[in-house]
Amino acid sequence: MRDIFHEELEAINETLLRMSGLVKEALSDATKALLTADLQLAEKVIAADDVIDQIQHDLDNRTINLMARQQPVASDLRNLVSTLRMSADLERMGDLAHHVAKTARMRFPSCAVPEVLTTIIVDMEKTATAIGEKLSTVIQYKDVTRALELDKDDDAMDELHRKLIAVLLSDDWSFGIETAIDMTLLGRYYERFGDHAVSIANRVHFTVTGEYVPAE
Amino acid sequence: MRDIFHEELEAINETLLRMSGLVKEALSDATKALLTADLQLAEKVIAADDVIDQIQHDLDNRTINLMARQQPVASDLRNLVSTLRMSADLERMGDLAHHVAKTARMRFPSCAVPEVLTTIIVDMEKTATAIGEKLSTVIQYKDVTRALELDKDDDAMDELHRKLIAVLLSDDWSFGIETAIDMTLLGRYYERFGDHAVSIANRVHFTVTGEYVPAE
Repeated sequence: MRDIFHEELEAINETLLRMSGLVKEALSDATKALLTADLQLAEKVIAADDVIDQIQHDLDNRTINLMARQQPVASDLRNLVSTLRMSADLERMGDLAHHVAKTARMRFPSCAVPEVLTTIIVDMEKTATAIGEKLSTVIQYKDVTRALELDKDDDAMDELHRKLIAVLLSDDWSFGIETAIDMTLLGRYYERFGDHAVSIANRVHFTVTGEYVPAE
Repeated sequence: MRDIFHEELEAINETLLRMSGLVKEALSDATKALLTADLQLAEKVIAADDVIDQIQHDLDNRTINLMARQQPVASDLRNLVSTLRMSADLERMGDLAHHVAKTARMRFPSCAVPEVLTTIIVDMEKTATAIGEKLSTVIQYKDVTRALELDKDDDAMDELHRKLIAVLLSDDWSFGIETAIDMTLLGRYYERFGDHAVSIANRVHFTVTGEYVPAE
């Protein structure tokens, strides 16, 4: 019985890994759509969010069925509960990519991002992609060292977010309130994407070591 | 054994009810602190968020222990998994109140909200309080009818959010970018508070009826 349990747990982990790949790709595509006012790509990301939601839904059902059939205790049970939370974080990361894509669509055929902020958004996407890639490694190999690194990587995202706000507040800002609102929300979507990745990494850390990552 | 299980499940539900009361109070106090630039009250809300986080942490441990000891299946297991998610939503609602309080603190001794937006923020708090009260009833009595109503109640919050953005975009707006950024984020915090309440109500609905509330 235990072998079947661990096989299924491994399969669940592979689905989490797949989800982390999908949300990383979604945010990357959404950013491209945002910066190039590419409506078709924005629509693709928006439609793909349903797929991510469905994967989460199926994954949660599999997890609950596995709990019911195998009745795990101790660390096995905690692992399964963690997967439920990780899938919720990943689903939310997909939502955030979806919000970025919707902003691109809302402003089409204009580009939502003024040129003065292009570099910062490009850097936020790069940082999110690096975080997403590391998160995949953390999920795949239960890599505790990289799990701890993600908190630092996310500091880079927070720094970019501060830079973005500084540009909005500078005397040079000439793009009006609507663009400032868009950019405020966009900045928050990227920032929250990083937060959820850190949250998942912290769960993997706890699952492997039994110790919580101390809050900052 | 089943009786002990249902007694503990009831105790868990009472803790969820307590959390829903706390997050409602937190957002109400945070709003008061925001509108009156009351630093002391803002600090109180910020400190109280740790209490909410700790309750969630303890509740989740109790839930997982109950799973391990009683090995529930079918609807009992689904109920317990639901409580894990509801506690996560409630914890996040506490975070959002905390964000509102931090905005009040950041702008102290000034008031973060310009007078032209006071009414909308007052209405958002009233709507959030009404949502929070109904949510408590839904949790306490597994009230499916009110659970379905919450989705409509949340539409009122979304409408207020749109009004808020319309004020920021009006030609009359004379409070600059920084206040527009603050108000954009504040609007989002109230809106998300409502979203999480709807998410919890939908879970209660599913737990009782076995049917998902159709997505809008």
